Amino acid sequence: MEDPHFKRTRARDARRWERGDSTERKETLAVEEPLEIRLGGRRFTLTMRTPGNDEELVAGFLFAEGFIENAAEIDEIRRVRDGDGKPEDNIVDVILRVPVDSLRERLRRNFAMTSSCGLCGKTSIESIARRIRPPADAASIAASTLAGFGRSLADEQPLFARTGGVHAAAIFDLAGQMMAIREDVGRHNAMDKAIGWALERDLVPLRDAVVVVSGRLSFEIVQKAAVAAVPIVAAVSAPSSLAVELAEEAGTTLVGFVRDGSFNIYTHPQRILPR
Amino acid sequence: MEDPHFKRTRARDARRWERGDSTERKETLAVEEPLEIRLGGRRFTLTMRTPGNDEELVAGFLFAEGFIENAAEIDEIRRVRDGDGKPEDNIVDVILRVPVDSLRERLRRNFAMTSSCGLCGKTSIESIARRIRPPADAASIAASTLAGFGRSLADEQPLFARTGGVHAAAIFDLAGQMMAIREDVGRHNAMDKAIGWALERDLVPLRDAVVVVSGRLSFEIVQKAAVAAVPIVAAVSAPSSLAVELAEEAGTTLVGFVRDGSFNIYTHPQRILPR
Repeated sequence: MEDPHFKRTRARDARRWERGDSTERKETLAVEEPLEIRLGGRRFTLTMRTPGNDEELVAGFLFAEGFIENAAEIDEIRRVRDGDGKPEDNIVDVILRVPVDSLRERLRRNFAMTSSCGLCGKTSIESIARRIRPPADAASIAASTLAGFGRSLADEQPLFARTGGVHAAAIFDLAGQMMAIREDVGRHNAMDKAIGWALERDLVPLRDAVVVVSGRLSFEIVQKAAVAAVPIVAAVSAPSSLAVELAEEAGTTLVGFVRDGSFNIYTHPQRILPR
Repeated sequence: MEDPHFKRTRARDARRWERGDSTERKETLAVEEPLEIRLGGRRFTLTMRTPGNDEELVAGFLFAEGFIENAAEIDEIRRVRDGDGKPEDNIVDVILRVPVDSLRERLRRNFAMTSSCGLCGKTSIESIARRIRPPADAASIAASTLAGFGRSLADEQPLFARTGGVHAAAIFDLAGQMMAIREDVGRHNAMDKAIGWALERDLVPLRDAVVVVSGRLSFEIVQKAAVAAVPIVAAVSAPSSLAVELAEEAGTTLVGFVRDGSFNIYTHPQRILPR
């Protein structure tokens, strides 16, 4: 579970001002630190994240970007060591178990995708669509169960409760049980960690699951869910136009504004049962 | 002001579920579309943004990344034309008025910065620090004025009011007047557009201004403000640990949780006057 080595909060003296009165007090901040991800020793990307669950983050990220098809394609994720042989907290090196030719092809595809993506929403959706795993048609959930997910999420965000400064992504089963929740200063990282959790347990494609995020639904969040074949994606806040368009194409049921027993369904409403 | 050509919202049929009742209704979505930014004809980056104020976005982004020192270094931002000679909505080409040697040096510096950034927060702060413009020591604002900015921001977010799906960044003067506000599906884009607005009016360094953002304060948002020499940065929500550390180093006054007449000051509190 959580590695106590990685501090996810930090105390900080602050001055609180309230209607003319000023007091000194300790505030708890969510930790944000860079994580450098290397692929076979070469710098691949850098993300600002909350430390902890870094292996899930790496697995979820590589999967969403199309570099791995499952967790077994990751041979090892190791901490790079500094000059004194001490493992770095913020640099990992990933060794993949993917033939060089396949990896080259996946890198090429990924590059082609991001470079064509500028043309228009349609083009980028089509490029992404090659990697989407169709969700299960039969997956469904009771509306009254789904309506409670906003509250479930709020009740299970210890880091948010202490800092007010992180996003969350959770995976529920279709009976409404929370399977996992991950919090991070970065919205995409929370999602990558949740999907990474599922990858490590060989639960992807996530055909019988609902992913719920604490914030808004961007194109990228829906994309990450669609690559993992998640049939139902819900959020406490609003989806963007492109998030809805992608969900429409991908066959994903997209739900927004899950709050206080109500929500909006934007696409593929047949999976939400009226009870 | 706003170019009516760029639609920032889109209507969408949705199904509203509320305590057992389901109704069809029109929802208004914030538009999210990719913008490809080219430099001298070569693809440079891609960002998912809400269309409109693209020139501000480009100027603010290039400034934050250290590629331009002021708006005069942008010779032209033009829409790339498609095969039929029609301008593309989502691809711009930027022609800089920067000597090739300087541009090469800036690209090299930027690359060195992002590749060293993985080591630790400290390293990345030091690399960024080379580009930071020290804010004015004398800049100050009355606490009671600052306490009202959360409300001011909420009152001036037409896109948020219609969609619930965008971030905002605003620039206030030290007397509390709002000078500009920009909304975008991307938090960084809203900030880049606001700074870009100031760049286009030759108001940078922004030594007598407060920047207020609708959401959380990440490292990157504080960095963008510090490069523009903004003395006071405030947010409706929480800062991250690295945002506070950067503000400490950069000499920026960092304020969080600006709500209902109260707020927290995390760094350099001397600029907030107790009245």
